[in-house]
Amino acid sequence: MGEEGVKLYGNILSPFVLRVEWALQLKGIKYEYVNEDLSNKSPQLLQYNPVHKMVPVLVHNGKPIAESAVIVEYIDEAWSDLYPLLPSNPYQKATTRFWAKFVEEKCLHGSFDVLSRVGEEQLKAVKEMQESLKTLEGHLEEKKFFGGETIGFVDIIAGWMPSWLGMIEEIIGIKIINEEDLPLISAWIKDLLDHNMVKETMPPQEKVMAHMRAIRENVLSAMSA
Amino acid sequence: MGEEGVKLYGNILSPFVLRVEWALQLKGIKYEYVNEDLSNKSPQLLQYNPVHKMVPVLVHNGKPIAESAVIVEYIDEAWSDLYPLLPSNPYQKATTRFWAKFVEEKCLHGSFDVLSRVGEEQLKAVKEMQESLKTLEGHLEEKKFFGGETIGFVDIIAGWMPSWLGMIEEIIGIKIINEEDLPLISAWIKDLLDHNMVKETMPPQEKVMAHMRAIRENVLSAMSA
Repeated sequence: MGEEGVKLYGNILSPFVLRVEWALQLKGIKYEYVNEDLSNKSPQLLQYNPVHKMVPVLVHNGKPIAESAVIVEYIDEAWSDLYPLLPSNPYQKATTRFWAKFVEEKCLHGSFDVLSRVGEEQLKAVKEMQESLKTLEGHLEEKKFFGGETIGFVDIIAGWMPSWLGMIEEIIGIKIINEEDLPLISAWIKDLLDHNMVKETMPPQEKVMAHMRAIRENVLSAMSA
Repeated sequence: MGEEGVKLYGNILSPFVLRVEWALQLKGIKYEYVNEDLSNKSPQLLQYNPVHKMVPVLVHNGKPIAESAVIVEYIDEAWSDLYPLLPSNPYQKATTRFWAKFVEEKCLHGSFDVLSRVGEEQLKAVKEMQESLKTLEGHLEEKKFFGGETIGFVDIIAGWMPSWLGMIEEIIGIKIINEEDLPLISAWIKDLLDHNMVKETMPPQEKVMAHMRAIRENVLSAMSA
């Protein structure tokens, strides 16, 4: 067990697990990583997350917490004296949660639509995704990260975008992010990918790509069945 | 303006606005209610919530906050000395957020599926909804409310269910909640509907029913078009 008994049940293919890793690493919390075989989940994982049976699960002093965004907020509150992920001011905190929710509902679902559709429907999904990113860009303003000079809660929640959106673009053969249309998001992507912790935690792209191609093929074959 | 300049932009047809009203009333915070005509939204609402252009919006000392769950957490943090909505312990808080998310993702989306589908697809949605409620029941345990002896965050987020699920049952002519299958949820529904504040804030059912019938008809006609 790591510091204060912190154990993370995860899998390298999951961008949601990555959120928890980033939160732990930014705070400098030592943890034990338990790699889960998602086609043959451990009894521990099923016991710790009986509702969703999914990674990530964080176990702290023997107590399990599931759902990546919930875990990240927990980490921020349980280790409140270390590197803050959310602002302490209630209004700024609410604004942070608003944009995190926007990323979950618009950008995450939007990117799944982009990946899993074809033809006209896919082009429509790409356009909607670009509009969501344009809206999100408004919240970056003049800041380097959504958290300001340092990576914060919204950066963590949106942290899959720089790498995953690039892979989606490659798989579907359509460019989603053009620098001239989304200059601030483009700069944010570069800054995030250039961050040492991000570089060190990023999973092997070819494995993630193969996994995402499989997701797309599964959805498309289910639709044509 | 009410106490400390609190203004709520809402509409009686919205169960999401009701969440914010309950949070304010449980804390005893005075507020001014601005009724929005959703077919002709005010310039103030569009200015305060340019991203979603939807109610509820809470304006506190001139600063707007949107998204009902975000607003309720804000109210709890901005008036932390009054009636607590979330537990202060980080682990209990994480558990509370986990179940609030479950209600949003499983029960809310599930009930929309129940309302907007027909035939076999509808029966499947009803079954899934019943399974979600059974899972949620596990979190009620021996408690009166999800918050314990008093109404808390999960009760507020799930607060649309007692009244709205009953209306959905009436509209579609299918019973979703049977007392023998869901005894704890059934008792929770009775306790919540019996709470004075809940009784006093509940919108006129016939208006909400007409609105929901219109939603169902719109979805069905869009599907058959």
